[in-house]
Amino acid sequence: MTIDDPATHASIAAMFARYEQALGSNDIAALDAFFWDSPQTIRYGVGEALYGFEAISAFRKARPGGSPARTLAHQAITTFGQDFAITNTEFHRAGEARGGRQSQVWVRFADVGWRIVAAHVSLAAETS
Amino acid sequence: MTIDDPATHASIAAMFARYEQALGSNDIAALDAFFWDSPQTIRYGVGEALYGFEAISAFRKARPGGSPARTLAHQAITTFGQDFAITNTEFHRAGEARGGRQSQVWVRFADVGWRIVAAHVSLAAETS
Repeated sequence: MTIDDPATHASIAAMFARYEQALGSNDIAALDAFFWDSPQTIRYGVGEALYGFEAISAFRKARPGGSPARTLAHQAITTFGQDFAITNTEFHRAGEARGGRQSQVWVRFADVGWRIVAAHVSLAAETS
Repeated sequence: MTIDDPATHASIAAMFARYEQALGSNDIAALDAFFWDSPQTIRYGVGEALYGFEAISAFRKARPGGSPARTLAHQAITTFGQDFAITNTEFHRAGEARGGRQSQVWVRFADVGWRIVAAHVSLAAETS
């Protein structure tokens, strides 16, 4: 299995950047399109646990103004073969002392291309 | 790509259960053995961000008593093809009001078999 095949890595890095742009502009249609359209898709958000594409999409639509503004740090992307990838990043929200962390798992499907099949976003707690 | 091939799913479900057992008994050697021995392995814990196998292992060794006792809920496992899988679960720690969430990404390597390449553990916050 090839780790970090350059072309695969570049395609995910581009998707990662496009996701961040969509999040920052609260482009709900674009955000929806990143996620695997399946009841098995999971997104653990900072305060919510969402099971299935429909729940994730409904959360986006009900979130006034979208995600709080943030800056990224320590971005890390690793690809495994040509169809599997993980993206991880820390982030800082304005006015929030707790550090944020975002993890996404990407799978490339034959019919629709790359999609996020699972995501986990959190703020670090004071304990371990 | 086959989603949830029965044999692949069963092998990950067994690994997931073994991991939980190792965590509960703070079996550090066993916990280490679940993780991909690579500087690219990432584990976001409840309060820490760990980059690379060595940092993850060092955290385990320095954690008195290991992880707080917990019970699991809403476990979800999905496998993609024969070499990729995600496991997600919510958990509750005794005496902790905030709900926990654990995400793991598993890759099957030709030489060493299944390993966790990324993990994210958090307590839900009061915001989204």
